[in-house]
Amino acid sequence: MCRRDHDEVYMPFSFIHKYFEVYGKISSSDSTDKFEWSHSYSKVYHPKKKYDPHGTFTTFENYNVEVRDRVKCISGIEGVPVSTQWEPKGFFYPTQIAQFGLAHYSKNLTEPEPRVKVIDDGDKNLENWIVSKDASISREFDTELKSNIIRFTTTEHPSSQVWCKVNISQDFVLSLDVRLKPNSSLTVVLQNKDKKETVYLHYVTSTQLIYTLDEHIYYGIGIEYKWRRLTRDLIIDMQKGWALLDKPKRKSPRNKFRISSIIFSGNGSAANIRVSTSEHMAHFFAAARWLVSTQRARGGWPVKARRRVAARVPDLKAGWHSAMSQGHGISVLARAYHRSKDASYLRAAQRALHLLDVPSTAGGVKAMWMDKYVWYEEYPTKPPLFVLNGFIYTLLGLYDLHVIEGENSISLAKKMFDDGMISLKTLLPIFDTGSGSFYDLRHITLGVSPNLARWDYHATHVNQLYLLAGLDSDPILINTAKRWEGYMQGRRAAHN
Amino acid sequence: MCRRDHDEVYMPFSFIHKYFEVYGKISSSDSTDKFEWSHSYSKVYHPKKKYDPHGTFTTFENYNVEVRDRVKCISGIEGVPVSTQWEPKGFFYPTQIAQFGLAHYSKNLTEPEPRVKVIDDGDKNLENWIVSKDASISREFDTELKSNIIRFTTTEHPSSQVWCKVNISQDFVLSLDVRLKPNSSLTVVLQNKDKKETVYLHYVTSTQLIYTLDEHIYYGIGIEYKWRRLTRDLIIDMQKGWALLDKPKRKSPRNKFRISSIIFSGNGSAANIRVSTSEHMAHFFAAARWLVSTQRARGGWPVKARRRVAARVPDLKAGWHSAMSQGHGISVLARAYHRSKDASYLRAAQRALHLLDVPSTAGGVKAMWMDKYVWYEEYPTKPPLFVLNGFIYTLLGLYDLHVIEGENSISLAKKMFDDGMISLKTLLPIFDTGSGSFYDLRHITLGVSPNLARWDYHATHVNQLYLLAGLDSDPILINTAKRWEGYMQGRRAAHN
Repeated sequence: MCRRDHDEVYMPFSFIHKYFEVYGKISSSDSTDKFEWSHSYSKVYHPKKKYDPHGTFTTFENYNVEVRDRVKCISGIEGVPVSTQWEPKGFFYPTQIAQFGLAHYSKNLTEPEPRVKVIDDGDKNLENWIVSKDASISREFDTELKSNIIRFTTTEHPSSQVWCKVNISQDFVLSLDVRLKPNSSLTVVLQNKDKKETVYLHYVTSTQLIYTLDEHIYYGIGIEYKWRRLTRDLIIDMQKGWALLDKPKRKSPRNKFRISSIIFSGNGSAANIRVSTSEHMAHFFAAARWLVSTQRARGGWPVKARRRVAARVPDLKAGWHSAMSQGHGISVLARAYHRSKDASYLRAAQRALHLLDVPSTAGGVKAMWMDKYVWYEEYPTKPPLFVLNGFIYTLLGLYDLHVIEGENSISLAKKMFDDGMISLKTLLPIFDTGSGSFYDLRHITLGVSPNLARWDYHATHVNQLYLLAGLDSDPILINTAKRWEGYMQGRRAAHN
Repeated sequence: MCRRDHDEVYMPFSFIHKYFEVYGKISSSDSTDKFEWSHSYSKVYHPKKKYDPHGTFTTFENYNVEVRDRVKCISGIEGVPVSTQWEPKGFFYPTQIAQFGLAHYSKNLTEPEPRVKVIDDGDKNLENWIVSKDASISREFDTELKSNIIRFTTTEHPSSQVWCKVNISQDFVLSLDVRLKPNSSLTVVLQNKDKKETVYLHYVTSTQLIYTLDEHIYYGIGIEYKWRRLTRDLIIDMQKGWALLDKPKRKSPRNKFRISSIIFSGNGSAANIRVSTSEHMAHFFAAARWLVSTQRARGGWPVKARRRVAARVPDLKAGWHSAMSQGHGISVLARAYHRSKDASYLRAAQRALHLLDVPSTAGGVKAMWMDKYVWYEEYPTKPPLFVLNGFIYTLLGLYDLHVIEGENSISLAKKMFDDGMISLKTLLPIFDTGSGSFYDLRHITLGVSPNLARWDYHATHVNQLYLLAGLDSDPILINTAKRWEGYMQGRRAAHN
């Protein structure tokens, strides 16, 4: 496998790559080929200004929660992601829902203004709906919506429809107010521009999350007859349907499809129909509302999936809590309060604090390091694991709430943040391997082999530390961030 | 620098070696050349039986303290090494002296019986001394030594001597009882068997440690007129003289030299003159006696050299104490008591405990980890460093004393050992880097870059842990030992 030339032995890089987990590629410049060498494929973000809880959440504008394979789909009723990470049939994972919200909140601030194509607003933009013979349509003013709406009625015959032809490419986020009687539906037809391929997205009066039949993909939006605001990323909805049909994942379907028609069947009303590049704030508030409506008496969002965390520790039983869920939830709710001034968001954020002070052994998420330093546990195992990134995310939730509450408030969040920062600054060096970082401290609490952070988690640590270094001038934060960033470039601590 | 063949890039091993600190060599077997790859050049010893404080001290039978460059010489008065490690003019470093003692104690148990050539025992073996015209010799019985001795008198003229011709190669440890009036000396002449080279080792009535003049090397053995037992490794004495003369270090001088004559000048007496392969127990007891005679009121052996330990911590000022000195001292003294039954050794060992309970801030060596776990500090800096190998050596001293005291004793040593083992088992995982071990915990206490243990210290850790795993069945010890040994073979902890 090696080559030899006199006293020198040459080793194939394919071996070096696997053995040391380094990366390399040949780059050609200045007419000479160079072999470039790197230790990590992850990106470090150097914050340009101090972290602001009113603004983007860390680097989450780069997150795309809903495209992840472990997201089954966006639920039709709540408008939030459903996870299959630890439970194939799907469950609401509060951390993921909060990340979905925070990503959209952040994108809303960083992305350019979306294009909006109004289909029918009942006012200036009116669509010429095509009405089958046996169907009918009428326009009226709705006092609840305070807006003009359309009412439609069709028979049960499949060809009995109220529909419109559209021809929209590039933008795929449909939103509308809709109110459906049982057995009624909204269908969006997508067509492949090149191939003769048609996909039907049906939003139906059902409590079933998602089901599919050939090119038909069905999302249940609930059965109650009431106004709902639907905001659907049609491409995501199509892809999640394909995933359910075990079709292979496709590259950039956004470039290949167009919306060809929108169809109403049954009995119902609709209003304010439009298609946009994005509707980030709608997704964000869907997450915020989910958090308010599902929060339990102790302020927690239980995770309803059994979680196997590590060998040698009992599984977390369905109904466990995560400090990361609590912290992320608080970050969502604090922003929702900031944007809406709706005090119910603030109260929910404040309620979410309490579980952070309940020990893991009592159903909470609090661990103590050597009986002395508090740690908010992403996974509240017994014994504790001291996961680093989840702890820091929890601290950010506390910071967010404290700032949004206002500097002069008597703030439990502030006290919890301060206590946590003392723990962080004390324990942070224990996570240093001299060439990377530990994901958690299981080697100390369980006495097992260390759990090294893979590079993307290490990069998360570095990004989190740069952010915190802007909030706290203790040199341990900035020095650790810099040293750990150096590890990603192949630097290592010295040996004696 | 690299080579390329289609899609594969070949890297020179000389680069890989430096970059990753791995070692490799080509080995030829079965008519094919193989490239063998290793991560560490250090050796791990798997103990064959439970550690016994009456026996060898860990793996110290492999130590050769006196040949180290940082040993200036073996002092003529005390018979113990003088260190130049932190103080070029030389100082007594208790840790080094104890290691010298423990190495010789261990070698005495593991090496074959030494050859002994009796030159003159005043009884069965009498040498025919050559006496110059103006010199004289007589034999008599000495009541103090309880042995026949020779008395010699010469004039101040250089050719006035009492001497004997010997021709001894291979064995070079001279021992004798000697009592010299001022300006008297013992000289040993060494000759290179190949080259015409003569070296004169002079043991003189002086308090000067060592001085040289061309081929003459002088060791002061003190000025008081009293019986002394001299035990000198002549090769070591010659090499240390050469080092002082800035002569290059020579390979295996033991094979190239012979002892050609022994010369007395001035006024004095001598007895029991012999040359042996080794006199390990004499060296061991020299160390033990030094420890008893220099111990201070608080039981300590102060280190009389300023020690710069790490950036960002104040230097240890001359007079500092080391838990490792205390522990090694106890290991020497416990064995000296075991061998001699002289209770003064036992009392000195017990006195040495007290400083282990005095905080570093009060001139002692005790640090506390998070106010909870005691640590005996090799270097009692403020803040503490938590050096691992020195701590474990201290624990071994405590264990040695406890066992030698007898199982039924009410033992402070036992309590200190037990407390220390709890600390060790609690903190040990913190020293795990996932691919090696930390030498100390300065990254945690000082917030600086970690201080990785180089491979020989890592191997020491592994050896120490295998030893302790034989004394304590807690799986953390044996599991850590095995995992850390794996790191030396290139294994690494998994990442998530």
